[in-house]
Amino acid sequence: MSTSNENNVSKNREEAHGQKHVSSPDVPAKNSSVETEQLVINTIRCLAADLCQQFKGGHPGTVMGAAAIGIALWKYEMRYNPLNPSWFGRDRFVLSAGHACLLQYIMLHFSGYDDWTLDAVKSYHAPKLHTIAAGHPEIEFPGVEVTTGPLGQGIANAVGMAMAGKQLGAQYNKEGYPVVDGKIWCMTGDGCIQEGVGQEAISLAGHLGLDNLILVYDNNNITVDGTIDNCFTDDTSAKLRAQNWEVIDVFDGSNNLTDIVAAMDKAKTIKGKPTLINIRTVIGIGAKNQNTGSVHGQALGDEGVTHLKSALGFDPAEKFVIPPIVYEYWEETKGRGEAWEAEWDEMMSKYADAHPEVHAELQQRLSGKLASGWESSLPSKSDLPTDPIPTRKSSGLAFKSVVPSDPTFVAGSADLLESTFVSWDGMTEFQKPSSGLGDYSGRQIRFGIREHAMVAIGNGLAAYHRGMFLPIMSTFFMFWLYAAPAARMTALMGLRWIGIATHDAIGIGEDGPTHQPIALAHFYRALPGLNFIRPADAEEVMGAWILALKDEHHPSLFTLSRQPVPLLPGSDRNKVALGAYAVHGPEDPELCLIATGAEVTRAIETAKLLSPLRVRVVSMPSMAHFDRQPTSYRRSVLPSSALVVAIEAWASFGWARYAHAGCHMHTFGMSAPQETLYDFFGFTPRNLAEKIGKWAERCKGDKPGVGDFEELLLGQVPDHHSPMPYSV
Amino acid sequence: MSTSNENNVSKNREEAHGQKHVSSPDVPAKNSSVETEQLVINTIRCLAADLCQQFKGGHPGTVMGAAAIGIALWKYEMRYNPLNPSWFGRDRFVLSAGHACLLQYIMLHFSGYDDWTLDAVKSYHAPKLHTIAAGHPEIEFPGVEVTTGPLGQGIANAVGMAMAGKQLGAQYNKEGYPVVDGKIWCMTGDGCIQEGVGQEAISLAGHLGLDNLILVYDNNNITVDGTIDNCFTDDTSAKLRAQNWEVIDVFDGSNNLTDIVAAMDKAKTIKGKPTLINIRTVIGIGAKNQNTGSVHGQALGDEGVTHLKSALGFDPAEKFVIPPIVYEYWEETKGRGEAWEAEWDEMMSKYADAHPEVHAELQQRLSGKLASGWESSLPSKSDLPTDPIPTRKSSGLAFKSVVPSDPTFVAGSADLLESTFVSWDGMTEFQKPSSGLGDYSGRQIRFGIREHAMVAIGNGLAAYHRGMFLPIMSTFFMFWLYAAPAARMTALMGLRWIGIATHDAIGIGEDGPTHQPIALAHFYRALPGLNFIRPADAEEVMGAWILALKDEHHPSLFTLSRQPVPLLPGSDRNKVALGAYAVHGPEDPELCLIATGAEVTRAIETAKLLSPLRVRVVSMPSMAHFDRQPTSYRRSVLPSSALVVAIEAWASFGWARYAHAGCHMHTFGMSAPQETLYDFFGFTPRNLAEKIGKWAERCKGDKPGVGDFEELLLGQVPDHHSPMPYSV
Repeated sequence: MSTSNENNVSKNREEAHGQKHVSSPDVPAKNSSVETEQLVINTIRCLAADLCQQFKGGHPGTVMGAAAIGIALWKYEMRYNPLNPSWFGRDRFVLSAGHACLLQYIMLHFSGYDDWTLDAVKSYHAPKLHTIAAGHPEIEFPGVEVTTGPLGQGIANAVGMAMAGKQLGAQYNKEGYPVVDGKIWCMTGDGCIQEGVGQEAISLAGHLGLDNLILVYDNNNITVDGTIDNCFTDDTSAKLRAQNWEVIDVFDGSNNLTDIVAAMDKAKTIKGKPTLINIRTVIGIGAKNQNTGSVHGQALGDEGVTHLKSALGFDPAEKFVIPPIVYEYWEETKGRGEAWEAEWDEMMSKYADAHPEVHAELQQRLSGKLASGWESSLPSKSDLPTDPIPTRKSSGLAFKSVVPSDPTFVAGSADLLESTFVSWDGMTEFQKPSSGLGDYSGRQIRFGIREHAMVAIGNGLAAYHRGMFLPIMSTFFMFWLYAAPAARMTALMGLRWIGIATHDAIGIGEDGPTHQPIALAHFYRALPGLNFIRPADAEEVMGAWILALKDEHHPSLFTLSRQPVPLLPGSDRNKVALGAYAVHGPEDPELCLIATGAEVTRAIETAKLLSPLRVRVVSMPSMAHFDRQPTSYRRSVLPSSALVVAIEAWASFGWARYAHAGCHMHTFGMSAPQETLYDFFGFTPRNLAEKIGKWAERCKGDKPGVGDFEELLLGQVPDHHSPMPYSV
Repeated sequence: MSTSNENNVSKNREEAHGQKHVSSPDVPAKNSSVETEQLVINTIRCLAADLCQQFKGGHPGTVMGAAAIGIALWKYEMRYNPLNPSWFGRDRFVLSAGHACLLQYIMLHFSGYDDWTLDAVKSYHAPKLHTIAAGHPEIEFPGVEVTTGPLGQGIANAVGMAMAGKQLGAQYNKEGYPVVDGKIWCMTGDGCIQEGVGQEAISLAGHLGLDNLILVYDNNNITVDGTIDNCFTDDTSAKLRAQNWEVIDVFDGSNNLTDIVAAMDKAKTIKGKPTLINIRTVIGIGAKNQNTGSVHGQALGDEGVTHLKSALGFDPAEKFVIPPIVYEYWEETKGRGEAWEAEWDEMMSKYADAHPEVHAELQQRLSGKLASGWESSLPSKSDLPTDPIPTRKSSGLAFKSVVPSDPTFVAGSADLLESTFVSWDGMTEFQKPSSGLGDYSGRQIRFGIREHAMVAIGNGLAAYHRGMFLPIMSTFFMFWLYAAPAARMTALMGLRWIGIATHDAIGIGEDGPTHQPIALAHFYRALPGLNFIRPADAEEVMGAWILALKDEHHPSLFTLSRQPVPLLPGSDRNKVALGAYAVHGPEDPELCLIATGAEVTRAIETAKLLSPLRVRVVSMPSMAHFDRQPTSYRRSVLPSSALVVAIEAWASFGWARYAHAGCHMHTFGMSAPQETLYDFFGFTPRNLAEKIGKWAERCKGDKPGVGDFEELLLGQVPDHHSPMPYSV
């Protein structure tokens, strides 16, 4: 599929450069010779080979094949200031093919990022800790916008950033003041294009007409296992055209910098559509094993490096050679970046005079802080409905109190807007204006039935400028499993969003076991850096929102009931952040029942049936927050002297940390109304009280220890995979 | 987009039917009048309205809009025997849009499945348990091939079934004996088409040229949140053509049965490609709120039902009306099905004479049992390598011992064939013969970088005929998070595959935190019905394979190390199924260290350093299997008198059930060589021994109870989201 000849230097290079400068007058007109550029390309290739060979690991092939793409981006196309990597007015670059990070690192070095010294780049795969040249790009490091690696997600991150840019532009740009007009560049390989999350994001980007998004496809037709003709024969260009994308082809992307630059210049001018630049390259070009899977993820070997260097006119005896002319070639990038930033600053100061109100709002947004006053706008406990309501609906009350008035929030759903209560009256949809459905100033996002992309897009929104957007995303809890790979990346990056996960247990009822989560909470509870909260009632829902809105560095996921729950007399929003607290019962309990979410109400009813036993009910909206409390607090909630039983309609896994016994789900659920299911699986207060009472009796004088955890509802129903009875 | 007129009966219906019977001579030539067919369609619509209205729930809209599609499938197109739903020679039907199950249930009733009485169908959303008419289709029930509901996966299940059919055909069909030639019909709505997993499967099906697969797209342009023009404007037909699919359009699918049948007839004749039939329908057609989101997932209301019935000429006062002529219309299906099966049986008996060897093999396959002798073909412990090897490589030894010789196995990877050791010498790839890469008899599958589809396809293979295929699927453990929604469905269905999850912890090293699982095991451990095994060495790997190969009703997932581990003197394959056992140390331990996988070796070294303490090391390859052992066994492994510490380089969540303290990961990982990481995060035997020894000293005379679990490595490294230090 790819064609290449490393010596086939484009005959039109210089003319094309001249042309380019006409169309991009902001790029300093500093021509370089074709020879120089080929030398730069070859230097990158040899450098990649040396960098992988030194520690015999890493991914050399893409760096070598896509060297010219890297040059086009960092030398000719992207606006950025290496002396201030977080300059707000910059273009943003997402390396969806994260394993090719070495290309990015080399570019960051050449283009003048202070921290990206040659020694820093040489720490790639080094046997040491805290290397800036991590195995995949990490958001913590200058010049990296988002952490990537798990394939496909980077495309969705870039879509989120493009949405961010479009929305800010619609909100803040004024005639003569294009304060937000950067492009989002995303580099994808063959892998990201195969992943479902990439496809979801591509489809949505086309729908939304995000013309600030340019997807640069390093189409080398090779993955780890060799040629992708083995498993992928889509016509990607035609496929993206069918999804409302502009497609520009480049047929020799390994060396023809002129064509790449021309394609990128053209992409910048496309209106109303995102653009795919489909660039054919040869992976590992110049290496003996070019165009094979082995050059994707393995160093070339000493002999391979020698072969490469000889072919490219480098001395095989020397390593990490960067001719001075190569540095000269990149010389302009620092000054240019400073000039761009200064120009932008000047525009901003005029903008402040011309449009003081929007400027002030933009400044507030740039601070990354929510507008003040949100906490007091939440309904107080005495203002909450006294009739039972689903916690998903209580969450809607919090949502409507804080979201409409603060432009920081964007909110949407994977096709369940009304079930998850994340829409509001008078909202504008974020849509392509020509659709007639909304415009880019809208803050209501319709993600479509694309849960994984939704959350990966949320990551892009959150990463655009820390704190400038607070995305709220929603679907049924079960489908947060589809989104889990992206939520994990959020936690890893320390970004913030709020996830609304409704219909959170067998309480979803008639939709049956396919929609009833049993084991999903356990992933989210084990995940470092994510606030996983299951509130018991409307008051705890307010506490969950407060916790999430105060925590700038972690995503929060609330799981919420479909079914109504009463407002509990003992519930307290201020105690949610403690993780657990006594919500009912005496000061000196003999028995504690810990429950979460909708099961707290059942636990309180159970406690009453267990009288005259002195039973405390503990609501535990967040295990992780409880674990962080001092022992004294933990022991005041769950006294050592008391027996403890956990009640939760999910798998028991993880509960033995707190409880001597538990009432949990041991199978998948079923199709039936929620009350019928709670009965069937044993969660009626009567059954719970009976099972717990008998067990407590058995434990008298012989308190269970570690290793004795008893599953009090085990055997309540036959194993799901025994022949299933059914009625006809 | 859709156009419709419920009275616009196609003028060509009867001629077309005549024509149809010419092209499908096996359908009894029993003409029905256009009036009768419209009555059947209308009856289904009123029935759907009544069935949803009775319990005020369910999904009426699709049933009403797609009634004619249902008739086309069950009356004209599909080969099946309602009197023997599991007749092997049948076509298979997958309802990817599982929420439309009521359409399937009504069709199963009309076409004569004994268990699907009208009362059975009326149990849809009934307030009772064990209803056959579950909220989404469930594999346990006659006429349902696979459990669906979470969108998009059904398409991938159907792709798996089509691969199964193709492969069996290539292996067992002989001239004049098309013993496996059924079609796989998959009905999808707008939701499945948006989901990434659906897109992944579509891409692979096109690549493989699965011409036994027909995707019937009920294109009503409406989802829960209303028109999909809000979020999805792909040209789906063009998109699928770009992925090597044939596309046939039907423009009035709500009523024009003739066109639907003609399209399906044509689809059956397409060679070398799967076919999409893009059928425009009007959701909830005839209802007042037709063509809206509300008719998708809500009953019509009494008034709505009255309106519908009046419009369709039914008496609003009567419910569940099925005119006798409607039953007459379906009368032929039972006898026809029996005749088809008898014909197939006759062919099979001739086939047995003509091709006794392949017939015998096919019979073995149909038994759903593995060929005998596999256990003894596994290398014994004394034959295992004595040098340290990665457990992923040990798994490759087991794989090569059992897989090549038994045609039940198919094996593949999401682009990591060689890293996961699931290929073998002399294998044939499962490929379209014209690709030149393999043929349909191949058992080596290249899934592409499509983890979610891989496992959902595995479910389709496993569901084709229980036990006939044992799919082995592989990728890095981290990317089993992408596949988790499909793995959950496997467990729910009680199907079998073996999942190979390599590079299972920080031992992946330089690839960094994006590739290092911390919290993923916790989902799989909590999931009911899945064998999650983390073997400690090559011997335990053999035990894991034995466990998986003996367990016909559950999927098994092995997590395996990238890095080498030694063969442990105390390891024992026969004890893997016990979940945990003492692998090192004295009979009367004061202290037990439980570890899993590669950490067992470290625990043994730690135990030695803790001398003179009497320390036992327990290997716990499976928590769930251990939990199922009697208390006496559990207490023999972890005596009440001993202190217990867990050591595992994942999050500690879940370990307090067994241990008083733990050594775990509290943050995400990092990019560095694996040894460096184990050191940094505190997993060196020296550090472990120091931390554990001090803690054991503190515990003297005061054994920790439930609630006292101590994280001995907490604070070992700073919180990941403190400002990250890095070196340049």
